[in-house]
Amino acid sequence: MKIVVDAMGGDHAPEVVIRGVVSAVNEFDVEVILVGEEPKIKDLLKRERFDPSKISVVHAPEAIGMSEPAAASVRKKRKSSIVLGMELVEEGKADAFFSAGNTGAVVCAATLSLRMLPGVERPGIALVIPSLKGFSLMIDVGANIDPKPTQLLHYGLMGDVYCKYILNKPDPTVGLLNIGEEETKGTEFMKETHELLSASKLNFIGNVEGKDLYSGKCDLIISDGFVGNIALKVSESVADALNNFLKKIIKKSPLAMFGLLFMRGTFKDLKKEMDYSEYGGAPLLGVNGVVIIGHGRSNAKAIKNAIRVAKVEVERQFNEKLLEAISKK
Amino acid sequence: MKIVVDAMGGDHAPEVVIRGVVSAVNEFDVEVILVGEEPKIKDLLKRERFDPSKISVVHAPEAIGMSEPAAASVRKKRKSSIVLGMELVEEGKADAFFSAGNTGAVVCAATLSLRMLPGVERPGIALVIPSLKGFSLMIDVGANIDPKPTQLLHYGLMGDVYCKYILNKPDPTVGLLNIGEEETKGTEFMKETHELLSASKLNFIGNVEGKDLYSGKCDLIISDGFVGNIALKVSESVADALNNFLKKIIKKSPLAMFGLLFMRGTFKDLKKEMDYSEYGGAPLLGVNGVVIIGHGRSNAKAIKNAIRVAKVEVERQFNEKLLEAISKK
Repeated sequence: MKIVVDAMGGDHAPEVVIRGVVSAVNEFDVEVILVGEEPKIKDLLKRERFDPSKISVVHAPEAIGMSEPAAASVRKKRKSSIVLGMELVEEGKADAFFSAGNTGAVVCAATLSLRMLPGVERPGIALVIPSLKGFSLMIDVGANIDPKPTQLLHYGLMGDVYCKYILNKPDPTVGLLNIGEEETKGTEFMKETHELLSASKLNFIGNVEGKDLYSGKCDLIISDGFVGNIALKVSESVADALNNFLKKIIKKSPLAMFGLLFMRGTFKDLKKEMDYSEYGGAPLLGVNGVVIIGHGRSNAKAIKNAIRVAKVEVERQFNEKLLEAISKK
Repeated sequence: MKIVVDAMGGDHAPEVVIRGVVSAVNEFDVEVILVGEEPKIKDLLKRERFDPSKISVVHAPEAIGMSEPAAASVRKKRKSSIVLGMELVEEGKADAFFSAGNTGAVVCAATLSLRMLPGVERPGIALVIPSLKGFSLMIDVGANIDPKPTQLLHYGLMGDVYCKYILNKPDPTVGLLNIGEEETKGTEFMKETHELLSASKLNFIGNVEGKDLYSGKCDLIISDGFVGNIALKVSESVADALNNFLKKIIKKSPLAMFGLLFMRGTFKDLKKEMDYSEYGGAPLLGVNGVVIIGHGRSNAKAIKNAIRVAKVEVERQFNEKLLEAISKK
């Protein structure tokens, strides 16, 4: 299996990307095609130990920056690592694509190059989030910021198949992220979506609220991409703020600093439990190919794990399973 | 000054509400009219010590439950504590209204009974949130879940006046909660709102993201009520989840339990710093009167502080200041 990795994507590219890729080929049965600035990549690869037959490099003279406008840069930078990398999948030269770069550009390039699966209107980004009962899947966290109710229904179907075949949750419960539990709550858009989900074959348990996001109330959380994106980023903000408040308070108290010595392990465990890098990558569902998106902050471990996520999605033939589910719906 | 308090509002009403009211009249120069089930209220008041001239009771035979549909229950339950209490303000028999009950019902009753200030289309709930730099004000957190761009501009104007005259921030910086910083980010609705805010006299610094919510990047955060509500509830979810994860991990480690003995004070300080009850109540801005909404979970301290919030808003003549600002805009 061959996985294309955007060497130029992420806040710490290409160094961190390459370290992650090397770990991946050393650990998993997978080949990687690194796309990006060839001389720099080759230089960095020289420092690493790996089976050279498992990593190849394709030169891309351009790169799309983290905050460049998505559609415009994909149109203009035809020789960028994202566009060229996606084309390798389109042409059948690779099985999957991964980038920790500009999310909007990846969504746009994937849609243009791989196109949508028949029966799906728009792609959605699904993300595994930790919960008090293990983990949940949330879709969409930002690919489609102005969706239609039917598109949220599609996200439900895609997320359901992902839960079943990739996350090993055989009968996932499904909730709609809304501002209240009652079916009459929320905007007209939310009420329409609630109706569609209720009439579907999904195991729909109704609306869930923001306060349920990490409680594990349901296995699959369906969300408007705008709201889902804000929800995720607010979560990071809360965690960062709590961390900073705690540091500020501890600094003022020698007693607390002493106590902290005994709690180091605890905070490490907590960090691990909440750590996105354990999971690594978020699948872009609905396009005709396997595309995984990484957090801009990704470290080498997150990159490695994202490659594993791509590998599993290819092996378990997610898109074939999804097409089957759509034809039966 | 007379403040109407809905004795039946909140998860722990009327007991907790009455304890909060008694603390308020004992601490502040304020009179309270308690509206609700008179026999029960009088019975509970017997246990408390306070100047009897400072608390009076108005009987309301009905109460609106926390999860009843807002508009329908306000229409039907004309003798509920929320509807009767709001009428006391409308008739000039009191200066302000406070409830920790059904938020939607309070918004609806306030709009129907007090009506909007001239020049304002829809009311918005403003909430003080803790930040790494002190605190920020966020508006709207759920009064108007399907707003128009002009309505978000109004929220900006109202929040600006609230920051200046109530929160003592003379030149508040203003941000729009969106999914990216660039002005081209977000839905058409967000782009239009961005334009209106840019053209206004507000000290608008542009879009802010979910990750900035608690960083103190700006003094005033303007948000769509749907998104604002989700953002707040997600924040509670993260804090609860972190707390629970931490407990789970500590239980497994005797060393961590020992360390915790020395950190008790730290966690108490942290809780205080993040504690909504320190502030107590969220003003409903835009209606022709002073209306404060409390969290359903409010404890006696939060109730007391919400009464202080109402008192300050009346004393500093917020609505007069707002009308002045609107006439000059």
